[in-house]
Amino acid sequence: MDKLYIVKIGGNVIDNEENLRSFLAAFASIKEKKILVHGGGKLATEMAGKLNVPQQMVDGRRITDKETLKIVTMVYAGYVNKNIVAVLQANGCNAAGLSGADGNLIRAHKRISTIASAVDFGFAGDIDEVNTTWLENLLNENFTLVISPITHDKKGQLLNTNADTIASEIATSMAGRFEIVLVFCFEKPGVLQNAHDETSLIPALNKNSYKKLKEEKAVFAGMIPKLDNAFAALDKKVSRVVIGKAEDIKKLVTGLAGTSITNE
Amino acid sequence: MDKLYIVKIGGNVIDNEENLRSFLAAFASIKEKKILVHGGGKLATEMAGKLNVPQQMVDGRRITDKETLKIVTMVYAGYVNKNIVAVLQANGCNAAGLSGADGNLIRAHKRISTIASAVDFGFAGDIDEVNTTWLENLLNENFTLVISPITHDKKGQLLNTNADTIASEIATSMAGRFEIVLVFCFEKPGVLQNAHDETSLIPALNKNSYKKLKEEKAVFAGMIPKLDNAFAALDKKVSRVVIGKAEDIKKLVTGLAGTSITNE
Repeated sequence: MDKLYIVKIGGNVIDNEENLRSFLAAFASIKEKKILVHGGGKLATEMAGKLNVPQQMVDGRRITDKETLKIVTMVYAGYVNKNIVAVLQANGCNAAGLSGADGNLIRAHKRISTIASAVDFGFAGDIDEVNTTWLENLLNENFTLVISPITHDKKGQLLNTNADTIASEIATSMAGRFEIVLVFCFEKPGVLQNAHDETSLIPALNKNSYKKLKEEKAVFAGMIPKLDNAFAALDKKVSRVVIGKAEDIKKLVTGLAGTSITNE
Repeated sequence: MDKLYIVKIGGNVIDNEENLRSFLAAFASIKEKKILVHGGGKLATEMAGKLNVPQQMVDGRRITDKETLKIVTMVYAGYVNKNIVAVLQANGCNAAGLSGADGNLIRAHKRISTIASAVDFGFAGDIDEVNTTWLENLLNENFTLVISPITHDKKGQLLNTNADTIASEIATSMAGRFEIVLVFCFEKPGVLQNAHDETSLIPALNKNSYKKLKEEKAVFAGMIPKLDNAFAALDKKVSRVVIGKAEDIKKLVTGLAGTSITNE
């Protein structure tokens, strides 16, 4: 089976043009099949400020009202997505930018408030289905796909979906077709023994060592959902999940940097 | 050869949500292969106003400075493009939205000021090449393509290109591969004998009758470049060019409404 790297980048890469360009040059040089999933960074918040659209966040997630959906569609699917594609093209990488609406790539439904979570997230989309056939065709035609976190419900409504979730769902959906390495880029070099010491990187984690770390309370709060999601992806046949810094992308995919999470 | 309809819509369709939805429902029901090229409408100008980015127009063309390029990329390639795709998907039409950067679909260069026209149009793109191979593949996989007028120079720069020009260039580039009908939607039912009388429609035009109309000064000023472009497309093997109202789209493609411009 061919390898497929699915890489998610967030605000800390996108917000700095120089960082983004150097990341994209390194990413473009990766020879294997690859998908880049991007968030939006600060630009959506900035744009909302300039347009006087108040932003409300609950547990780090944006409440997507009608005007905010317009802004994230413009910023994520328009500005950020097309600029990334243009820079990858300039680096000799045949990139194509897609949202979840294009070719019905990612069908979702508007998140429903539950008893457990009565928060109305507005036009937030929870994923129903990934169009794996089309993704596989495009990858086999040697396109590098750049995916913005805008989905649709196939009833004409666009929705805003968390970019981490999109990367995970694409990874697990494609797991039978390729050998998947799922990479989450964030501001730290990986999972740290000591959150304040960047040299205390844990290079590898499996279920046993993770359990031990949790018992020792060595993993900090924000890391736990990330790692739980990583292990859930492994249960769904993803080969490896890597967490680390975007600037190390070439080493992250080969396991020479970051924290590699595996079943081994 | 299979038929391919290339349809360009502008502000008068895009600016009114109800008109746009009813146009898209009709467009979606067309069985033949089809490409929709859209402009941006008033939204880009509105957005520029809200963001305090002054807009300068020369001969009906927008001067695209850096901030304006950001706005048109957000509005055209993001908001307008993805909403059109979502509505087509809801109408059972497998649409995919692309800019000229995606898959190097339309390569362009920044317009150069000449002695004849010393105007600096900023990041305006004049087209060098259309990726006809990829377009043909996507059409043969039964995708309906929705193309925003944002191109790139393959050196990392996005560019703003006139949507009429994009429709024409795609039409002439694809002419050897399909039997092309190129449709321009605008606010009038077609070419009129009397610009103030909508019932004075001229249903068909060829080079001879056009020459006669010009001699009689029956075609009004704004129409002449449109018609000159239409005849230029016919010279490059486009089968038929139709000019008419978006609401008549199903009749325009079959020649039952609008003005059909042919070599016959």
